[in-house]
Amino acid sequence: MAAKEDGLARGKAKMVELFGPGADEPGGVLFEMAPKLGKIAQETLFGDVWADPALDTRLRSFITMAALVVLDRQPELRIHFRGALNLGIPREQIIALISHMAFYGGMPVALNSLKTAKEVFEKWDAATAKFRK
Amino acid sequence: MAAKEDGLARGKAKMVELFGPGADEPGGVLFEMAPKLGKIAQETLFGDVWADPALDTRLRSFITMAALVVLDRQPELRIHFRGALNLGIPREQIIALISHMAFYGGMPVALNSLKTAKEVFEKWDAATAKFRK
Amino acid sequence: MAAKEDGLARGKAKMVELFGPGADEPGGVLFEMAPKLGKIAQETLFGDVWADPALDTRLRSFITMAALVVLDRQPELRIHFRGALNLGIPREQIIALISHMAFYGGMPVALNSLKTAKEVFEKWDAATAKFRK
Amino acid sequence: MAAKEDGLARGKAKMVELFGPGADEPGGVLFEMAPKLGKIAQETLFGDVWADPALDTRLRSFITMAALVVLDRQPELRIHFRGALNLGIPREQIIALISHMAFYGGMPVALNSLKTAKEVFEKWDAATAKFRK
Amino acid sequence: MAAKEDGLARGKAKMVELFGPGADEPGGVLFEMAPKLGKIAQETLFGDVWADPALDTRLRSFITMAALVVLDRQPELRIHFRGALNLGIPREQIIALISHMAFYGGMPVALNSLKTAKEVFEKWDAATAKFRK
Amino acid sequence: MAAKEDGLARGKAKMVELFGPGADEPGGVLFEMAPKLGKIAQETLFGDVWADPALDTRLRSFITMAALVVLDRQPELRIHFRGALNLGIPREQIIALISHMAFYGGMPVALNSLKTAKEVFEKWDAATAKFRK
Repeated sequence: MAAKEDGLARGKAKMVELFGPGADEPGGVLFEMAPKLGKIAQETLFGDVWADPALDTRLRSFITMAALVVLDRQPELRIHFRGALNLGIPREQIIALISHMAFYGGMPVALNSLKTAKEVFEKWDAATAKFRK
Repeated sequence: MAAKEDGLARGKAKMVELFGPGADEPGGVLFEMAPKLGKIAQETLFGDVWADPALDTRLRSFITMAALVVLDRQPELRIHFRGALNLGIPREQIIALISHMAFYGGMPVALNSLKTAKEVFEKWDAATAKFRK
Repeated sequence: MAAKEDGLARGKAKMVELFGPGADEPGGVLFEMAPKLGKIAQETLFGDVWADPALDTRLRSFITMAALVVLDRQPELRIHFRGALNLGIPREQIIALISHMAFYGGMPVALNSLKTAKEVFEKWDAATAKFRK
Repeated sequence: MAAKEDGLARGKAKMVELFGPGADEPGGVLFEMAPKLGKIAQETLFGDVWADPALDTRLRSFITMAALVVLDRQPELRIHFRGALNLGIPREQIIALISHMAFYGGMPVALNSLKTAKEVFEKWDAATAKFRK
Repeated sequence: MAAKEDGLARGKAKMVELFGPGADEPGGVLFEMAPKLGKIAQETLFGDVWADPALDTRLRSFITMAALVVLDRQPELRIHFRGALNLGIPREQIIALISHMAFYGGMPVALNSLKTAKEVFEKWDAATAKFRK
Repeated sequence: MAAKEDGLARGKAKMVELFGPGADEPGGVLFEMAPKLGKIAQETLFGDVWADPALDTRLRSFITMAALVVLDRQPELRIHFRGALNLGIPREQIIALISHMAFYGGMPVALNSLKTAKEVFEKWDAATAKFRK
């Protein structure tokens, strides 16, 4: 069986692939408040689950967004919408996913998620515009 | 704008693609109890949403299973696990999806969904075995 | 302020109005396992809330069914569908309520609730048929 | 069967009845981000479901608020509290509905919904006061 | 059986024990908007349930936080995190509770709750610092 | 940092403490269908989280039951009610916990959980009676 250190390395690599450079640094509220849970997120969630090749990263991004939309978890959706853009998932596919979810979790969770998507897309465009100058 | 009749035809075709021959017949509790809602399911959910080419049917199957797992909707999961097998989605990918969801909806919904998957897989095998004889 | 005993009497009367003769008897799993919670249900839930004339009993039956449908609480829906029939709410209105909820809680909770409604309606008809002979 | 155009007209009329003049204009985040889902909301949710005479608009407003309270969907509650005031539903009935829901969805969703109701009532009063001058 | 007035007195005493001096005053949005529900909270929720010696107050604080974390009820968590600090529950136990819940309600509710805990802890420290000067 | 093997050993010991002899054997639907997730449950959920001494096992049992009650996860409640009895938690405390949860997750989840508790208690008594003969 693989040592935990391998899971940590795999998890960090997957976090960078998904969220961009620096995403593997232990930081944010999670690591500040609950470093043990942070380690579980890195090693187990990203290192064992997301890094498992049974499903590719793009598909995992889609199913994660689906779960977060129907559960109405807007702060985490914000993070995973950014991740999806980072992976190159087209915006129209994100919109189609949210619209599909309206029939499984109800219209209200779709509406909330569209608002979050709009904010993420606008910030992405603003950041990209700054970068291009 | 497309006439409703087109949506109905598209929806029926999508239901057959997803659930197999005969799935487009109005039947079951839905049509017996609430025929108007049944029509909405055919025309709008399957005809407008599932049939929208922005996401392909396989991907829609994945995100639907993801939603149903985290919401713990076991009776509908049963139907969509069968749909996924019908589309040729490998079982190991369905298992990987359920395992991924354990971290977004909690371990209990993953456990419940694994039980449902086991039952669906066993019935599928039994039906296939009968068919082969 | 009214004494608790009044709440108890009001609650029992409301339970009989809603669920029929005998419904005010402390019984069932609730009273067997958790008699204090049973008393709270009688005195406070039925005696203070359901008996509050700000909303009439029929309307309270509708909003209770709406809540139970979107939360997918099938065992309690069974009880409140019977209560609704007992109050004379037409079946087509119950079906319309479930169908409406499909857009707020998702199709799966509507489908589950239609199955429960079908069972309750059939038991009601069987009981009524027996009674008529 | 009715053509889709009829559903659209019925849906727009129902949206004006519920939310006031201008509510039938395609606008807001829904139409900007997901125009297809916006069309489904107008034609199917408002045109086929809300406009179905099996339940009158006031009763549909009550069951919608009930669902949104127990699911803790505060942004949509805001819209439907305004709709309820627009239909002439008395505030004490809205408060009674929220209080009733405390026993089906828990005290926390009732508290959150009371805060939202307070904000909506205050904005309504401010807007009405301005109008009267 | 105890008179309702006793429940009210017990409830007020429990609210002061849990939330500090003044917490027994009818106030806030609950009493302003829904005084009947406020009375039920005082008499029944705090006077009958929280004051029932079958579970001590500290343990009730833990199970209440657990419920609020997995249901993602952040505004009420804020109140009960403060109550927990007031009862002398160590912060590392609150963090351990939130981390435990990640596996039952999903990572997203744990993350949201950690953010809320951080804010409550910081306000507590700021208030205590002011008090010490 | 501890090696994963230690987590596995700690997790197995905790599972035996909580669920009785044999509970550390990889078995059941979880291990049959999703062995990787089973390993995560043993090593991480039981080995890192449940075995973390920040909260003792009895307290973790209480908060787990609280979460499962409000989320209405009856199959897992069945397992954890047995675990609680195994740890020596008195039945009246389990009943008090369920009753407390009625105010946070709603009456319906409390009712469902009381039914499950009744079944678990009866099976426990039947098994104990057989053992005594």
